[in-house]
Amino acid sequence: MRRDRLLVASSLAFILAADVYFVLLPRLREWYRQPQRDGCACRGANGSESDRSSEPWGSNVSIGTLDSGSKLERLFAHPLYSIGLPEVGPEEILLQSEELMSYYRRKVLRWERLITLANISVHEQRVTFDPGASWFKFHLGINRYALYARNDPNIAQLIKDMQNTPVISADYTQDEKALKGLCDCSQVVKPSGHHLKLALKFQDFGKAMFKPMRQERNQETPEDFFYFVDFQRHNAEIAAFHLDRVLDFRRVPPVVGRFVNVTGEILQATRNDDLRSVFFTSPANNTCFFAKCLYVCKTEYAVCGQPDLLEGSMSAYLPGLSISPRISIPNPWTRSYTFTGRQEWEVNPSYCDTVKKMYPYNLGNRLLNIIDMAIFDFLMGNMDRHHYEIFTKFGDAGFLLHFDNARGFGRHSHDEMSILAPLTQCCMIKQSTLLRLRLLARPQYRLSDVMRESLTLDPLWPVLTEPHLLALDRRLGRVLRAVQRCVKRLGEQGVVVMDFVETLRGATPRQTKESR
Amino acid sequence: MRRDRLLVASSLAFILAADVYFVLLPRLREWYRQPQRDGCACRGANGSESDRSSEPWGSNVSIGTLDSGSKLERLFAHPLYSIGLPEVGPEEILLQSEELMSYYRRKVLRWERLITLANISVHEQRVTFDPGASWFKFHLGINRYALYARNDPNIAQLIKDMQNTPVISADYTQDEKALKGLCDCSQVVKPSGHHLKLALKFQDFGKAMFKPMRQERNQETPEDFFYFVDFQRHNAEIAAFHLDRVLDFRRVPPVVGRFVNVTGEILQATRNDDLRSVFFTSPANNTCFFAKCLYVCKTEYAVCGQPDLLEGSMSAYLPGLSISPRISIPNPWTRSYTFTGRQEWEVNPSYCDTVKKMYPYNLGNRLLNIIDMAIFDFLMGNMDRHHYEIFTKFGDAGFLLHFDNARGFGRHSHDEMSILAPLTQCCMIKQSTLLRLRLLARPQYRLSDVMRESLTLDPLWPVLTEPHLLALDRRLGRVLRAVQRCVKRLGEQGVVVMDFVETLRGATPRQTKESR
Repeated sequence: MRRDRLLVASSLAFILAADVYFVLLPRLREWYRQPQRDGCACRGANGSESDRSSEPWGSNVSIGTLDSGSKLERLFAHPLYSIGLPEVGPEEILLQSEELMSYYRRKVLRWERLITLANISVHEQRVTFDPGASWFKFHLGINRYALYARNDPNIAQLIKDMQNTPVISADYTQDEKALKGLCDCSQVVKPSGHHLKLALKFQDFGKAMFKPMRQERNQETPEDFFYFVDFQRHNAEIAAFHLDRVLDFRRVPPVVGRFVNVTGEILQATRNDDLRSVFFTSPANNTCFFAKCLYVCKTEYAVCGQPDLLEGSMSAYLPGLSISPRISIPNPWTRSYTFTGRQEWEVNPSYCDTVKKMYPYNLGNRLLNIIDMAIFDFLMGNMDRHHYEIFTKFGDAGFLLHFDNARGFGRHSHDEMSILAPLTQCCMIKQSTLLRLRLLARPQYRLSDVMRESLTLDPLWPVLTEPHLLALDRRLGRVLRAVQRCVKRLGEQGVVVMDFVETLRGATPRQTKESR
Repeated sequence: MRRDRLLVASSLAFILAADVYFVLLPRLREWYRQPQRDGCACRGANGSESDRSSEPWGSNVSIGTLDSGSKLERLFAHPLYSIGLPEVGPEEILLQSEELMSYYRRKVLRWERLITLANISVHEQRVTFDPGASWFKFHLGINRYALYARNDPNIAQLIKDMQNTPVISADYTQDEKALKGLCDCSQVVKPSGHHLKLALKFQDFGKAMFKPMRQERNQETPEDFFYFVDFQRHNAEIAAFHLDRVLDFRRVPPVVGRFVNVTGEILQATRNDDLRSVFFTSPANNTCFFAKCLYVCKTEYAVCGQPDLLEGSMSAYLPGLSISPRISIPNPWTRSYTFTGRQEWEVNPSYCDTVKKMYPYNLGNRLLNIIDMAIFDFLMGNMDRHHYEIFTKFGDAGFLLHFDNARGFGRHSHDEMSILAPLTQCCMIKQSTLLRLRLLARPQYRLSDVMRESLTLDPLWPVLTEPHLLALDRRLGRVLRAVQRCVKRLGEQGVVVMDFVETLRGATPRQTKESR
C-alpha cells in the first residue's frame, strides 16, 4: 500500500515535471521571445544605453572578435588591402608643408588679433598651433588617390583629438551663412534650413563640422519621406566614414561621435550673435537651439541637450577652399528633387552610353569612381548624392570626395535599387573594388561583422542598430549579383576593369609603394 | 531495493518540480516582465491597432459598461445633470429660424451660381439644403447658456452626419486664408503655419473643420516642447468634446472622428488652386499634402493618406460670423508665448485680486466661467488658451466657447499645475461645477470610466490611450484637493458660489425648465 502511494506520488511528480518542462517552459519562453520577434526593442531615456544591453554583442567587443580574433584586423591584413600605390609625385600631393604652414600661421595671427580686439577674458583658452597637430598632418597627407593612407596612425590620433580637444569657438558653416537664414524655399530641392550643423574650432586650431542627433537610432525614416527632406543623421555620418574605410576607398574625411556641451562649447564659445539668439531653455530645463532659418524659427525643430550634453558627429574639415579649392560637379545620376519629375537615367536604360561619351566620363576612371560611389551609397541607402566634389589641383585624375553622408542609414528594411543605376546601366566596375566586395561577402570577413567591429571604436557605439548592419550584407549580395548579371551578359573582360589603367602612365598595382 | 529506488526517483522528481516551480518559473516570469517594467511597448505599423489589443479593455466595449451597466447613462440620469435652466427668452437664443433660413437660402443660391459658372460636371453632387438638417438645428439650438441642450437627440444626428455625409467642397479655413501662406514668424507666438486644418462642406450644406492626424496616440509630446509649438492633435479635439459634455459645460461644438479620402474629398473637391498645389504623391504612393505656408513648404511636415484615407477630426462649424458675430478676448491667465517671458499671474500670487476688480470680471459669472475653463484645460493638460470667445449677442452674460482644444492630451505623465492658476489664485468655483466634479471622482461614475465609455461612440475609438484616461482621474483629484485647500482657508461660503446668482434676475436653479 505504502509502495503504491509512493508509486502514485512519484508518477504524479514525474508527470508534473514533464508538463512543466515540455509544455509550460516552452510556452513561457515563447512569450518572452514574442516582443523580439515582432521587432519591438526597448528604448530607455537614452536609446543607445538600452540598445547596448539588448544587443547580443553588447557584453563584449564584437562578434567579429569573439570567435576567432579580429575580423577587421584580418581584413586589413589581406593582400587586397596592401596593394601599393604608384610613386606619388609632388604634383600629386594636395599641399606642401611650407605652403600650409604659412597659411595657418596667418590664420592664427588673425585669430589672435580678433581675440585681442574682442577683449576676450584671460580665462579663454588660447590657441596652440602646432605643426605636429593631427589635423595638420591629415591635411598634409591628402594625395590624389585618397584622403589618407591605410595605416596612417595619425588618423587614429585625429579621431581621438576630435573627441577630446576643447572647443574654443563655434559658428555656422559657410553654406549656412550663404543662406543668410533665408532658406531657399522657392524650390523643393533644399530642405527648409533645418540643418543644425555647426563649425567648431578646437584649441589646437583644428576644425570639425558638428551635426547633432536629430533622430533616434531605431527610428526608421517614414516611407512617405522624399530623400530630399529626410533628416540628416549624425550616426550615418559616423558609419559612412567607417564603411568607406572598410571598402578601402578613403574618400570620406574622418568622423567621430562626441557628446558636446551645448552651453559651454557652443553658446559660450560662439561670437556670432545670430547663433546665440537661437538658444533657449526648454520647459524641461534643457539647453536647446533651433535652425537659423528665419521662417522656421520654431522650437519644434530644435535640438536639446540633456541638460547640456548633446550627442553628435564631428567630421574633420578639409583644408580651406582658398588654399585647396574643390569643384562641385552634378552627379550624372542625380535625382529630380521634385515630387513628380523624372531624370533621363530613370527612363532610359541605355543612358550610360550617352554618359560614356561625355567628358570627363570618356576619360580615365571617373565613371568607375562614380560607380564606386554608387555602390557606397547603395550599401547605406543614401539617395541624396546630387553632386560630388573633387580637388581642383588633381583635375580629372583626382578621386571623388564622398562628402555629406548624413542621409544614409535611414531605412534598413528597404534596398533602393535605383541607387545602383550607374553600376547596372554601365555594367562596369573596378577590379580592386569587386575583389574587396567579394572578400567582404565571405563569412571570414563579412561586411556586417567588420563594420560592427569598426564601429566599436566610436564613443557613440552602437552607432548603427543591428538591422542596419545586417542590411549591409543583404545589399552587398545584391551588388555582387548585379555584377554577376553583367558578367553573364558581357563577359568578365567587358565588365571588370583593371584600376589605374588609363591614368597611371604605365604603372600597375603592386609595382609601387603606398604613399603617406 | 525497488522501494528505495522509487523513493529516490520520487524525491528527485519532487525536488525537480519544486526547483522548476520556485526557482525557474519566477525567474522566467521576471524576464518576461522586464521589458514591460521598463516601459517598453510594442508598436506595430499601425500604432492604434496594437494599442487596441494590448489594452485590457480592448476586447469589449468598456470597463464602464462591464461591471454594472452604463456609468455614462447613470451619470446623465443623476439629478445634477437635470438641473433646469431659467426660461429662455428670444433675446437669449442666438438665432431665429427665419433669419437663419434666409441667410442660408442666399448662401445656397450663391453656391449654385458658382457651380454653374465654374461649369462643374453633372457628376458633381448637388447641395440639398434642408431646414431639417442636423447642423441647421444645431445652430438654432444655441442659447446663452450652452451650445446644445443635454439630451438633444439632434447632436447625435449631427455627429452621425459629420461622419457619413459626402464632402462636396474643401478649402482653407478663414484664418489660414488670412495668413495668405506667409506665416507670422516674426514672433514666436504663432506656430510656423503647420496647421493643416481645412474647412469641408457637406452635401447637406453643413460645414466642419477637419484636422488631420499628426501624431500617433501613444506618442507623448517631448518635454522640451513649448506649449505654443506643440502639434495639434485630432484626437484631443474629439476627446475635448466628450470631456466638455461629461462635465455638462456644453461649450465645445460637436466633434467626431472620420476617415477622409484625401483624394476624393479634398483634392478633387476643392476649387482652391493653392490647396491643390500642395498635394503630392509620396515615394510610398500615398496621397499627401503639406501646410500652405510658403516657407515651410516641405514634405517632412506633410500628412499622408493610406493610400488615400486619412484619419482626422471633424468639428461642427458655428453659424457664420456675419450672422452671429463673436468676440475673442485675451485670457487674463494667458502665457507669455516667448522663451523666457513671465506674465504677471506667474509671479504675483494675488493677481486675482486685480482681475476681480477689472471689468468684466467684476460682474456676473465671467470669472467663474474662466475658472470652469481652467479646470477643463487642466484636466486635459491644455496650456494653449490665450484667448476665449463669446457670442456678441449675449454680451457679458454669455458662456465662454471652449474652442480649439487640439493641444490637450499631449502628456499623460505630467500634470501642469499652472493651468489651474485661476482656481488656485481666486479660490472660487461654481457650485454646480464642484458638485459634478465630486460626482465624477466617485467610483460609481469615475471620470476615466465615463470618458472611456463616451469615446466608444467615436469611430476612431480608442481616441485616447489608457494612460491619458487615467490621468483624468489623477488630475480630477488634484482639482478637488485645490478646492479643499481654498475651503480650509476661506470656508465653504467664501469659495463655492451658487450659479446664476447675479445674472439670473432672481431665478434660481430647478425653478425653471431646461431650454431646447
